[in-house]
Amino acid sequence: MSELLTLELIRAARERIRDKVTRTPVLTSDVLDGHSGASLFFKAENLQKIGAFKARGATNAVFSMSDAEAARGVVTHSSGNHAAALARAAKLRGIPAYIVMPNNAPKTKQASVARLGGQITFCEPTTAAREAAAEKLIAETGAQLVHPFNDYRVMAGQGTATLELLEDVPDLDVVMCPVGGGGLLSGTAVAAKGVKPGIRVIAVEPAGADDAARSFAAGKITPSSGPVNTIADGLRTVVGTRTFPEIQQHVDDIVTVSEGAIVQAMRALWESLKVIVEPSAAVPYAAFVERKVSLAGKRVGIIITGGNLDLDSLPWANTEVL
Amino acid sequence: MSELLTLELIRAARERIRDKVTRTPVLTSDVLDGHSGASLFFKAENLQKIGAFKARGATNAVFSMSDAEAARGVVTHSSGNHAAALARAAKLRGIPAYIVMPNNAPKTKQASVARLGGQITFCEPTTAAREAAAEKLIAETGAQLVHPFNDYRVMAGQGTATLELLEDVPDLDVVMCPVGGGGLLSGTAVAAKGVKPGIRVIAVEPAGADDAARSFAAGKITPSSGPVNTIADGLRTVVGTRTFPEIQQHVDDIVTVSEGAIVQAMRALWESLKVIVEPSAAVPYAAFVERKVSLAGKRVGIIITGGNLDLDSLPWANTEVL
Repeated sequence: MSELLTLELIRAARERIRDKVTRTPVLTSDVLDGHSGASLFFKAENLQKIGAFKARGATNAVFSMSDAEAARGVVTHSSGNHAAALARAAKLRGIPAYIVMPNNAPKTKQASVARLGGQITFCEPTTAAREAAAEKLIAETGAQLVHPFNDYRVMAGQGTATLELLEDVPDLDVVMCPVGGGGLLSGTAVAAKGVKPGIRVIAVEPAGADDAARSFAAGKITPSSGPVNTIADGLRTVVGTRTFPEIQQHVDDIVTVSEGAIVQAMRALWESLKVIVEPSAAVPYAAFVERKVSLAGKRVGIIITGGNLDLDSLPWANTEVL
Repeated sequence: MSELLTLELIRAARERIRDKVTRTPVLTSDVLDGHSGASLFFKAENLQKIGAFKARGATNAVFSMSDAEAARGVVTHSSGNHAAALARAAKLRGIPAYIVMPNNAPKTKQASVARLGGQITFCEPTTAAREAAAEKLIAETGAQLVHPFNDYRVMAGQGTATLELLEDVPDLDVVMCPVGGGGLLSGTAVAAKGVKPGIRVIAVEPAGADDAARSFAAGKITPSSGPVNTIADGLRTVVGTRTFPEIQQHVDDIVTVSEGAIVQAMRALWESLKVIVEPSAAVPYAAFVERKVSLAGKRVGIIITGGNLDLDSLPWANTEVL
């Protein structure tokens, strides 16, 4: 299978989106360094436009299109941060964004998309209904589907976070990020290995949605070991046909973490970094909480992927002790 | 009364503490700009060491001392962020920090001071008991009191946040910060007017602790209009004999805000900036929420002072609608 994501694509994405996304800061914490035994450098993509790294990939996709293509608009059937990111990018380019959302999507995500001018079509919360609704919109409008991860423009855009991280902290030994569909992970891995071939790339996944870890071990795309069940709502998807080959080639390891470790990690990040971290974004640090990685003394970059969640229902609100 | 805080002192403080504190990022939000009608630039001192701007003043004070003075240690009877900041600065210099705390101090603040090596002495939660306990420690150890705000070294240190802010965003029309004892406000005002004489400096204070607004109007230090009662626990103190003259000379206005506006502002900042903001730090933005300032079209710098609070008791947890 030919490799189609390259460092050059990621560098081109960076120039394309440079003035359209935030160059997010890198945060550190003596407390978290103490707990982990490593030196941790958190790339704060929760402080990115729309509160997540997804702004990068969607913006790169929308601004890669020709004027004629773009004029008909873009479509997605993702309900999460990618939807907000695509709506924002389309608004920046002055084109329509059609967003298919399940009728049970969190109200904060609905509001975010609507505020950014996305035209929402609600559907039943099944994959079939979402795909059917998107197909119908495409047939009616001629708009182009921008997949949340299985798209090289999106994958390249997501990799730009790692380019910035390695500019700010060049001497990293390891880069870590969560894996859901694999758009961020493939971009991260290609960027990191391209800039610094000796670096290690470790992905972390909820044990309750362990398709990437199982796929990585099996050498082919493989479903999760059980029904998908995790608080990390951004990571419930299965790796894609375009992302998985990149992951196979460039990632060193994929480890899994428990739900308890994710919540504990999330709280630790809130308390020590003083930033709002959504559950999916706490997954890499959960690998330290649960001792799933041995990186004592290493300099480790971690992508904090997003900070969008409902502040009325924090996972520790009804829990005496985590 | 002679003016004793100068731009030169603040610049010297900046060099003294440059490699000992974080150069915090400036955050922006299209949503908050839309709501306020202004262009807002938030200096994120909640991402500062110990989670608050207080790291600046305490570090400047500790590193301004001679070796002989420093060797005997430092004392404070503040229980808040200044205590953690002083403990951290003392640890950096390798000297003892004696921290007097009321026995009802929040557990997160106790833990923070203890983790930083501060030697805690508990006392009854009265001003008299705290001062007596501090006096006793000074008599026993020869340590030096570092007041949380009424100290030129501390005031100069706090002003360094504004020097950085004006480097990052030189063309500000206004700088805003909260006022409690006035250490931050006096440093902010002297720095801002020193660097950019035409800039306006507006302080914001809870209506439930309005001594600074009343003092400013009366031309002399004046107590609050009623019993001090505000969620903004960092702002319950009265302006000091050294801070107030600087405020009189360099500040353009002091406005007050309600408790409801503070909580609403706090939540808006969490949701839009994706950072954790303690109640005191939300007070300046509350002036926009409550329409206490008219700054449409202006470029406004706002110091987000800190992010330390108990995540188990958020002010909106038991409120259906704010």
